[in-house]
Amino acid sequence: MMSRQHTYLINGGTDDAISPLDRGLHYGDGVFRTFKVVDCLPVNWPIQYQKLVSDCGAIGIVCPSAELLMADIQMLFDLDEIAVAKIMVTRGIGERGYAPPAITAPTRIVMKSPMPVYPASHYEHGVALYICKTPVAHQPVLAGVKHLNRLENVLARAECRDPAFVDGVMLDMFGNVIECTSSNIFVRKGNRLLTPSLVKAGVAGVTRQRVLDIAHYLQLTTETADIVLDDVLTADEVVICNSLYGVWQVRSLAAQTWPLGKLAAQLRELLSL
Amino acid sequence: MMSRQHTYLINGGTDDAISPLDRGLHYGDGVFRTFKVVDCLPVNWPIQYQKLVSDCGAIGIVCPSAELLMADIQMLFDLDEIAVAKIMVTRGIGERGYAPPAITAPTRIVMKSPMPVYPASHYEHGVALYICKTPVAHQPVLAGVKHLNRLENVLARAECRDPAFVDGVMLDMFGNVIECTSSNIFVRKGNRLLTPSLVKAGVAGVTRQRVLDIAHYLQLTTETADIVLDDVLTADEVVICNSLYGVWQVRSLAAQTWPLGKLAAQLRELLSL
Repeated sequence: MMSRQHTYLINGGTDDAISPLDRGLHYGDGVFRTFKVVDCLPVNWPIQYQKLVSDCGAIGIVCPSAELLMADIQMLFDLDEIAVAKIMVTRGIGERGYAPPAITAPTRIVMKSPMPVYPASHYEHGVALYICKTPVAHQPVLAGVKHLNRLENVLARAECRDPAFVDGVMLDMFGNVIECTSSNIFVRKGNRLLTPSLVKAGVAGVTRQRVLDIAHYLQLTTETADIVLDDVLTADEVVICNSLYGVWQVRSLAAQTWPLGKLAAQLRELLSL
Repeated sequence: MMSRQHTYLINGGTDDAISPLDRGLHYGDGVFRTFKVVDCLPVNWPIQYQKLVSDCGAIGIVCPSAELLMADIQMLFDLDEIAVAKIMVTRGIGERGYAPPAITAPTRIVMKSPMPVYPASHYEHGVALYICKTPVAHQPVLAGVKHLNRLENVLARAECRDPAFVDGVMLDMFGNVIECTSSNIFVRKGNRLLTPSLVKAGVAGVTRQRVLDIAHYLQLTTETADIVLDDVLTADEVVICNSLYGVWQVRSLAAQTWPLGKLAAQLRELLSL
């Protein structure tokens, strides 16, 4: 099993594939998480698991126990290895029709992928973003939840195949900046660190929360707010974050460019503590 | 194979299950259709297939040929049988990450389910609907498309387990009526037949289109329009439709009730021609 590039366990087993009756496939009826695993240890596991439980709860799925998921991770991953884990939890198998069965047995899938090799320049010199045309829909019932309905992100990411752009900024239909396709975004204006409110749309990532929790170390006050594109373009510094690469500075967006700043490196250092 | 309650073919084969790497599972990156199959013949196949091609095109998937799908249907279904077919087409297998691979081989899944047994009273006396609390999000890029991101429908349908209510009316966040969780809706006001505009949200079903196409037989003028809940509650008649049950009259919604009318039966008769 360890010789395959991707390895996975479905409900703890190595033989199964996904049933064509799984509601994760039919409706995107499930949630997921992606994070680094170093030496068989999931990075920031308590907060990752807490978010998984919360997201499962948001759509009425009973989350598998931390012990089960940890056992899966220890079976899939090796010591002396840095790799990516993706956990998906779906509502499980169901008959045709939207109504969830009265009793469901969630499907848990734990997958291992190679850790992406990010160019050193992304850390040293920052990155360029594009602006997505695909809007993020307002859906307060699901906002913040990392669920399996991700067609918006797929279409937004597919808009730009130029590898010079590492991600794209997604706006809602009212021109508010929400997130990037696979990152959250922060802007610094003086000693204020702002990130978009995600009560109407978007995915509230674990690294976003960790940045909000540590920003005061840098004498920054944090705000979650409605942020329009112009707020980003006129910011002193812009950074993006996720659980795999950590934090990168945004050096260009549309016609705007920024000089090399210190915030991304400072946040990376604090997150590594 | 024919002894199982559900039978399915994945890319025309009987052995495969779904790969855990399928983008249909990870992102809901695909589309589907549901329709009746009578004596091995898919009902309204030309319009069903045309809609499948159109929906695939909307998210950039190349639709499998009608010949392949028809061969699957003929392998799965029997003569002297009325059953339900569900076709799903996903973007296929991909590496981790939202960006679709440059070249993809779509996964096609054709499934057979038993035809639901609907109570005769739904046809003779009409049905009751509830009003969903879960809103339908505005997403013009995906509006009308029957894609696999259906968590809104799942949550809306799960709001009411009382079998006295056959479906729920879904509104957008501005109070516009969009659809029911698995039906489209029409209201009659005098000789006007109105159905919600689906350019911002909702699924444009094949039966909805067929009703729009035949309503002039009944001297009705059709309009797709922004319709608020009060327009529904004050209508002369309300009907819902989908490809499995056809058309039913709505006899009650919230505190409003309607007398038995003729429209649903007239539309069913016209659709059966």
